[in-house]
Amino acid sequence: MSKIKSKKVSIIMGSQSDFKTMIFCKKVLKSLNIKFETKIISAHRTPERMYQFAKNAEKNDIAVIIAGAGGSAHLPGMISALTSLPVLGVPIESKKLRGLDSLLSIAQMPKGIPVGTLAIGKDGAINAALLAASIIGNIDSKVKKNLKQFRLTQTRSVKKKPK
Amino acid sequence: MSKIKSKKVSIIMGSQSDFKTMIFCKKVLKSLNIKFETKIISAHRTPERMYQFAKNAEKNDIAVIIAGAGGSAHLPGMISALTSLPVLGVPIESKKLRGLDSLLSIAQMPKGIPVGTLAIGKDGAINAALLAASIIGNIDSKVKKNLKQFRLTQTRSVKKKPK
Amino acid sequence: MSKIKSKKVSIIMGSQSDFKTMIFCKKVLKSLNIKFETKIISAHRTPERMYQFAKNAEKNDIAVIIAGAGGSAHLPGMISALTSLPVLGVPIESKKLRGLDSLLSIAQMPKGIPVGTLAIGKDGAINAALLAASIIGNIDSKVKKNLKQFRLTQTRSVKKKPK
Amino acid sequence: MSKIKSKKVSIIMGSQSDFKTMIFCKKVLKSLNIKFETKIISAHRTPERMYQFAKNAEKNDIAVIIAGAGGSAHLPGMISALTSLPVLGVPIESKKLRGLDSLLSIAQMPKGIPVGTLAIGKDGAINAALLAASIIGNIDSKVKKNLKQFRLTQTRSVKKKPK
Amino acid sequence: MSKIKSKKVSIIMGSQSDFKTMIFCKKVLKSLNIKFETKIISAHRTPERMYQFAKNAEKNDIAVIIAGAGGSAHLPGMISALTSLPVLGVPIESKKLRGLDSLLSIAQMPKGIPVGTLAIGKDGAINAALLAASIIGNIDSKVKKNLKQFRLTQTRSVKKKPK
Amino acid sequence: MSKIKSKKVSIIMGSQSDFKTMIFCKKVLKSLNIKFETKIISAHRTPERMYQFAKNAEKNDIAVIIAGAGGSAHLPGMISALTSLPVLGVPIESKKLRGLDSLLSIAQMPKGIPVGTLAIGKDGAINAALLAASIIGNIDSKVKKNLKQFRLTQTRSVKKKPK
Amino acid sequence: MSKIKSKKVSIIMGSQSDFKTMIFCKKVLKSLNIKFETKIISAHRTPERMYQFAKNAEKNDIAVIIAGAGGSAHLPGMISALTSLPVLGVPIESKKLRGLDSLLSIAQMPKGIPVGTLAIGKDGAINAALLAASIIGNIDSKVKKNLKQFRLTQTRSVKKKPK
Amino acid sequence: MSKIKSKKVSIIMGSQSDFKTMIFCKKVLKSLNIKFETKIISAHRTPERMYQFAKNAEKNDIAVIIAGAGGSAHLPGMISALTSLPVLGVPIESKKLRGLDSLLSIAQMPKGIPVGTLAIGKDGAINAALLAASIIGNIDSKVKKNLKQFRLTQTRSVKKKPK
Repeated sequence: MSKIKSKKVSIIMGSQSDFKTMIFCKKVLKSLNIKFETKIISAHRTPERMYQFAKNAEKNDIAVIIAGAGGSAHLPGMISALTSLPVLGVPIESKKLRGLDSLLSIAQMPKGIPVGTLAIGKDGAINAALLAASIIGNIDSKVKKNLKQFRLTQTRSVKKKPK
Repeated sequence: MSKIKSKKVSIIMGSQSDFKTMIFCKKVLKSLNIKFETKIISAHRTPERMYQFAKNAEKNDIAVIIAGAGGSAHLPGMISALTSLPVLGVPIESKKLRGLDSLLSIAQMPKGIPVGTLAIGKDGAINAALLAASIIGNIDSKVKKNLKQFRLTQTRSVKKKPK
Repeated sequence: MSKIKSKKVSIIMGSQSDFKTMIFCKKVLKSLNIKFETKIISAHRTPERMYQFAKNAEKNDIAVIIAGAGGSAHLPGMISALTSLPVLGVPIESKKLRGLDSLLSIAQMPKGIPVGTLAIGKDGAINAALLAASIIGNIDSKVKKNLKQFRLTQTRSVKKKPK
Repeated sequence: MSKIKSKKVSIIMGSQSDFKTMIFCKKVLKSLNIKFETKIISAHRTPERMYQFAKNAEKNDIAVIIAGAGGSAHLPGMISALTSLPVLGVPIESKKLRGLDSLLSIAQMPKGIPVGTLAIGKDGAINAALLAASIIGNIDSKVKKNLKQFRLTQTRSVKKKPK
Repeated sequence: MSKIKSKKVSIIMGSQSDFKTMIFCKKVLKSLNIKFETKIISAHRTPERMYQFAKNAEKNDIAVIIAGAGGSAHLPGMISALTSLPVLGVPIESKKLRGLDSLLSIAQMPKGIPVGTLAIGKDGAINAALLAASIIGNIDSKVKKNLKQFRLTQTRSVKKKPK
Repeated sequence: MSKIKSKKVSIIMGSQSDFKTMIFCKKVLKSLNIKFETKIISAHRTPERMYQFAKNAEKNDIAVIIAGAGGSAHLPGMISALTSLPVLGVPIESKKLRGLDSLLSIAQMPKGIPVGTLAIGKDGAINAALLAASIIGNIDSKVKKNLKQFRLTQTRSVKKKPK
Repeated sequence: MSKIKSKKVSIIMGSQSDFKTMIFCKKVLKSLNIKFETKIISAHRTPERMYQFAKNAEKNDIAVIIAGAGGSAHLPGMISALTSLPVLGVPIESKKLRGLDSLLSIAQMPKGIPVGTLAIGKDGAINAALLAASIIGNIDSKVKKNLKQFRLTQTRSVKKKPK
Repeated sequence: MSKIKSKKVSIIMGSQSDFKTMIFCKKVLKSLNIKFETKIISAHRTPERMYQFAKNAEKNDIAVIIAGAGGSAHLPGMISALTSLPVLGVPIESKKLRGLDSLLSIAQMPKGIPVGTLAIGKDGAINAALLAASIIGNIDSKVKKNLKQFRLTQTRSVKKKPK
């Protein structure tokens, strides 16, 4: 099982503009010292690239896939349809319906093909990284330690009184 | 252009249970004497089948694809991503959110990959067939005639007074 | 069938202000070398003009009608009620409910009168043009070629990595 | 002004099935001794009939038009577009979205073409009749008296304690 | 019935800030030469004033009451509970839910107490004035003439082509 | 302060049919040995009764008012407008929109006139009684003791494992 | 019961940023001369602090707890789970869904654990203070007097006419 | 790492009635030969039990926690606040709002405390089990093999044609 520690998180998104949100995912993974990659993969505009990516994810040492998408957000669900790795979905805020469409498109998956959905936007991107960390933490005690430290720091950072 | 008249409409859906809705699509096409096929293709459970279907649709003499799907309804959008044929989407009523999730997942496609979305449920299934008929009617005068007759009969069937 | 190639797409909208959205529809049709016209036709403020337009659309060599409307968006549905040509609807973003009202007013048509509905706003306007292109592409091989090239260029424009 | 008392309320609806709701409108008008007619007029399936009805409404001694419609409910708005008589709209409960689509399609009219919208379903049908009564009551003192009696009876019928 | 022509429309609203919306109501009434008054009456902060206003509305020569309110918008419904004059409601856009709460609070009245609800915001304010004009036009031929002229001008102002 | 212990909770509702929900409120108050009364008071059909009730509530030894209402649910807000006693609102499930309209009509009160809103339906009715108990418990130690016992019993009733 | 007058209102919130909303709660309590404290307590980031706070609230002379929270707003409900004091919840406007998620998360509590929910945002914060005042006013006649004066001033501040 | 294979999935839910949904989660885990436990833990009615459970989860050899909850669904988020193990949330369908409230309460978590949210109801319960399986499959090759077999069987079970 030593190979496990060399596994990485793959952060994918449908377009460059989604990176304004997904960059927060990357930052958290970095701060927790978790290996990751970032890719643009559009379910709609690059379906072949998506197929290739998903089909090869396991052999490419990916442990968790985090997919951000907005509107008719098909990327997370389609990736999950093409691999049995854990897939987490981040609903990107859409321009018109503020991400409610993205959330429903990602969360309301039919039985058989799971996507772990996080909150709309930046908060969801951060939490996808933390959930990936907790998944990896199950087997990588260093990541678990880093995650616990992150959480502790977070707790301590909460002031007692507003001002 | 003689081949055009031999083209067909392909009605696809994610599962057997969607046929309770999509059967109305089939009935209308039949009544208009339009060639069609019906297939179960799940974006989530049979992504490879979907890929093969969409990639070969054009050479299989398909003129219009009608895809019914519910919840995180990815089938119409993914088919459109894989072909440049016209794709119409029918939001199947979902058990919990009554098809609002299906409607948003199908309608809110990003620029570049179009899906012509119809109403949720049976009415949408019927209208998908009628829209396909109007598309085919552009080039097949018999279908156009049948469609006009259908519409005329429909208009005439409206009673003057409720009782 | 030679006349088919001379047919055009008619882009109609309820008011000048809708053109901020519908201009994207026009741009795509232009880039694909598809004949088109643009008109302001308000279901509510110019119902007679709407009747005249719809009743004469077929003899005026229109192959597809694209109608943009917001709020209680009646234009696409009423046009479809008055012609058996294919009608596509673009929900314009409304000031208060961000186009959710427009989307429901256009998509939830009763059985018998179909409207192929696209996404709210600019993305929907672009996709209406692309869906019209795929419809015309069924019979006009040049348009089909242009559409395939458009899609290919689109796919190729997707960067591999975000930055 | 003697002609005013001979004016009637026209209750129109898109289909026979809407009469399950609109019958309550008729019952209230009857109980208030207000002249009325009931007609089936579908904006979508009988647009010409709608046009004729609206254009002749004024000369046919109609004082108020009450239009019931569901889903993409275009009837009230289109009637208002075709006449300057007061138009009241009753959103019929739709099968999937429970009348939320009907309500938005009727209420969210653009400036220039008013529809006075009532509640979804039976309560709205009853209230459309009462609002019509209050409009007619402005000029017909018998109707005003009947309406006041109706309201008084209604108030008196409210029990003091639940059981 | 000669007194009828001396009747007026009363425009009431819950607060000064609602006047940003309701001023459009006043402008239309003015342009149609209809007598009106404007008042601030808050169902919540001045319930006594509301009771007095509604109870005396009829004897104060009011023909139609237009009430604008936002959020838990109780003003139109409460006025209707206190008078049998026709009451029209304008949902003011709320800061958080953009007027969806206002619309539902005004439109979803129980049977027995009608409010004719217009669209959210400025468009609704304008249409409330036009609906009031059509009500008054039933008995005041000058107002009817002005209203028809307004509608005609409106129709003529719609350009043929967008630019 | 001895008078405080003689104070009661007043449960009011718009109609007999609301009692199917509000009876659960009564049952909890009874089980906690809190004095209460139940009344039908409709903001819309009996506005004068509402006015009298609210104006006299304080001198009638009422400590907390619980008002249940559905749809355009004006009762809780209007009661709060007419008294400075604490008012709790229970959104009754509406037939069409399942209580979402009731919830927004009660919760979205403007600044100045507070209503403490509970959940839609039976759960809200129960919780209104418990919140009233906690309010009275602040000054009546027996009620506080009963409430704590209720909560303890509730906690103990939760089984460890599902079956 | 003399201790009652020394009791205070505790205003708690999940983060510093919520204070932009909750400060209005504080201002109203101050103006009514009611004792209060303000604390940052996050259900999610400081669950231990939350447990300690809630468990000791009663002995710390707290009469009412006002909790502001946004998004998956768990703070008010969890506080209510841990104490039998009255808990009021203020839904903070969330960045994406404008507080609709906050409102539902706070209002839709299951039976057994009540939270009195106010409006989304600033209006809700103000009203939480006023509802707390009415609760305390039940036993503290000075607070009741101040509250009545506040309400009277509020009523008097409403202008008669908009301008 | 041998200890990993002895780790289990803990399925928790707020009440016995939630087991109608969560039993599907249990069934899938069983069919995949994954160790699990089922517990009733209510965030609201048994907060202490929740606290104890979450604090001891790691030392009790739990690898993934699946929490089902409805309405103001606080259980998944609070568990995540109390442990750094991966937490998956299943929105139980609520009686009034059909699970939309449950979905928003679970999905819209603030940054820092992640919950991987699945679909509303039975489909979500099944998918939570499958997502847990994919997480465990990362380190337990037997579970991975079982999961792949499950997915393969699922794909093969999809019929080619509806009937």
